Amino acid sequence: MFGRGFAAGAVASVTVYALYSSLVQPAREEVDTDIRLIRSPRDLAGEEDPKGSDILKYGTPDSGTQTRTYTNHALSYDQGRRTPSWVAEHITKQDLQGTASRKSANFKMDPNLNPTYSSMNSDYKRSGWSRGHMAPAADNKFSQEAMDETFYLTNIVPQDIDNNGHFWNLMEIYCRNLTAKFSDVRVISGPLMMPNVDEGEKQYVKYEVIGQNLVAVPTHLFKVIAVEPSSGSPPDTVGVGVFVVPNAPIDSTKHTLKEYQVSLDALEKSAGTSFLPNLTRSSMVDLCSLDPCQMKNKQELDLIFITKRMNEATTLNRLDKSWKELETSTIVPSDNLKNLYAQKKRILTEKESQDQRLKANGTA
Amino acid sequence: MFGRGFAAGAVASVTVYALYSSLVQPAREEVDTDIRLIRSPRDLAGEEDPKGSDILKYGTPDSGTQTRTYTNHALSYDQGRRTPSWVAEHITKQDLQGTASRKSANFKMDPNLNPTYSSMNSDYKRSGWSRGHMAPAADNKFSQEAMDETFYLTNIVPQDIDNNGHFWNLMEIYCRNLTAKFSDVRVISGPLMMPNVDEGEKQYVKYEVIGQNLVAVPTHLFKVIAVEPSSGSPPDTVGVGVFVVPNAPIDSTKHTLKEYQVSLDALEKSAGTSFLPNLTRSSMVDLCSLDPCQMKNKQELDLIFITKRMNEATTLNRLDKSWKELETSTIVPSDNLKNLYAQKKRILTEKESQDQRLKANGTA
Repeated sequence: MFGRGFAAGAVASVTVYALYSSLVQPAREEVDTDIRLIRSPRDLAGEEDPKGSDILKYGTPDSGTQTRTYTNHALSYDQGRRTPSWVAEHITKQDLQGTASRKSANFKMDPNLNPTYSSMNSDYKRSGWSRGHMAPAADNKFSQEAMDETFYLTNIVPQDIDNNGHFWNLMEIYCRNLTAKFSDVRVISGPLMMPNVDEGEKQYVKYEVIGQNLVAVPTHLFKVIAVEPSSGSPPDTVGVGVFVVPNAPIDSTKHTLKEYQVSLDALEKSAGTSFLPNLTRSSMVDLCSLDPCQMKNKQELDLIFITKRMNEATTLNRLDKSWKELETSTIVPSDNLKNLYAQKKRILTEKESQDQRLKANGTA
Repeated sequence: MFGRGFAAGAVASVTVYALYSSLVQPAREEVDTDIRLIRSPRDLAGEEDPKGSDILKYGTPDSGTQTRTYTNHALSYDQGRRTPSWVAEHITKQDLQGTASRKSANFKMDPNLNPTYSSMNSDYKRSGWSRGHMAPAADNKFSQEAMDETFYLTNIVPQDIDNNGHFWNLMEIYCRNLTAKFSDVRVISGPLMMPNVDEGEKQYVKYEVIGQNLVAVPTHLFKVIAVEPSSGSPPDTVGVGVFVVPNAPIDSTKHTLKEYQVSLDALEKSAGTSFLPNLTRSSMVDLCSLDPCQMKNKQELDLIFITKRMNEATTLNRLDKSWKELETSTIVPSDNLKNLYAQKKRILTEKESQDQRLKANGTA
């Protein structure tokens, strides 16, 4: 483990130091082993509610922390911070097939949440922070409804825009690609508030709050990834990988996913949440022992984006722009990509010349 | 209401400004009125769990936020911050009568809480922060068990020591004194994290975390006080007063309780919690319209403390020390107090001369 002297860049070192602190196990001599049931006020032996009325006569204070379920994700919402506490999803190969598109989806308030405790699009506007999905839209190609629901602001946290578009995106792609190897991939994602300011011997948590609803900007983000090996592994074994990254730009050419791996215990202690309560520690194996835990590199990612843009191009102009992007990069196009370009070019050329003919005939 | 220019001392102005921000109602044009039931993943019409397995197969992430009940208080615990989120209690005249004493009580870990998420006495030691009760020990004179349970660390937050001993203490005494006027007094107390750092146009929440368990030091503390008028008021009317104070020294000779009164809505939005969910707004009347909302002043408080110390004195030396404290203060002792002093003096003089006789006889 790394101590405070760890020197690999400010961002990484903040992460590691903060997690290191929470990994230190305090002396447990204070643990009181005399565990007994705490009685409810009404259960006082022999006494029939001696005080004549309930402590919570006007209702139990309600923080609305129950689990909310959607087509393909479930979450617990933090009404005080106006962000989710965690968002869980289940990804299979089938979920990634389909025609659902983010073009028709809009960020909006969750109709199922009391507006008093909701964030709003206006909170994010001009805040400098992007609206970061916890359950990614792209994990829901199988259902437009499932995808639309990921745009509810209950699934969104203020995220550094570079982190959102690059390192975190690579992590999301990594999770999707795991479906090629594992039949069921479950991911829990969420925000964290970790100590990030050191003043002498004191430690502080400091985070920005944005907009009129004072939406809390997390200092860090986590993913708990749990995979079920399709075959070849002992039965009932689950591969678990836990990653915590700062909510800040991370250069994927300099930092790997594995650098941000932490123990489940460390994350649970930091978040105050037990994430896989029905799974015993003895049935867990390290995800990175089943899979190299390597994300796509920048070049591979660029190739994915350029291919995506070429696929979606509706004009010759856009298609050629993407191709030129490829030519100025260091990416060597595969035969498949060359074929895609040639095919799209043929189709769009035909389409545009037909459009022009119609226009010339005055029928368009 | 006060704006940012409010000039009555730094502490008060931080409070008021932060609450003011959260009082501003955001434009509600974003509120989606198309409220519909969000379906659970298993409820998809006509489809029998199309994905073949549950999102939360390994259990629902558990933040342990259920309500915990004790003899005379109930609370919700924040496992991530290692403090309660809120602590509710019910105070009547009868609860304040009795022989329960804090002398036999010790701060200790709550035997009912998973130690991973507990604070410990060692976290507070040398932190500079005192262990502040949310449900006060002194509200439980009727039962040693009830009082002992208030010393569980689930009822404790890191509190400024001056605030704990003075302004907050005056607030607690104020609540107890309300039982002289109202048959049932219910109080919900807890910590808050409010914006407390302004940098240009940005706002931040910043709080210290102490000890190996990184216990969060609240920026503010709140009390929601609800009283039932004994008679003379419309039936079903409940007097409600909501107060938020900074977790910092507050000079009670310069600041009044009323300065810290805020609306229930403002507190609820800030805390993310609905505190009196079964009480309609229309049945609430302002506590300060039923009672002047005036706390004891410093002199009255000193008198209470000196009387208490005189009452508890077990040696002549200690008794006289308390009397001298009185003489150097501006307090004019009442006849009752003079009688108490004379009576205690007689008892302790007799006791000490008896002790000396026994000692001289070698039988002590």
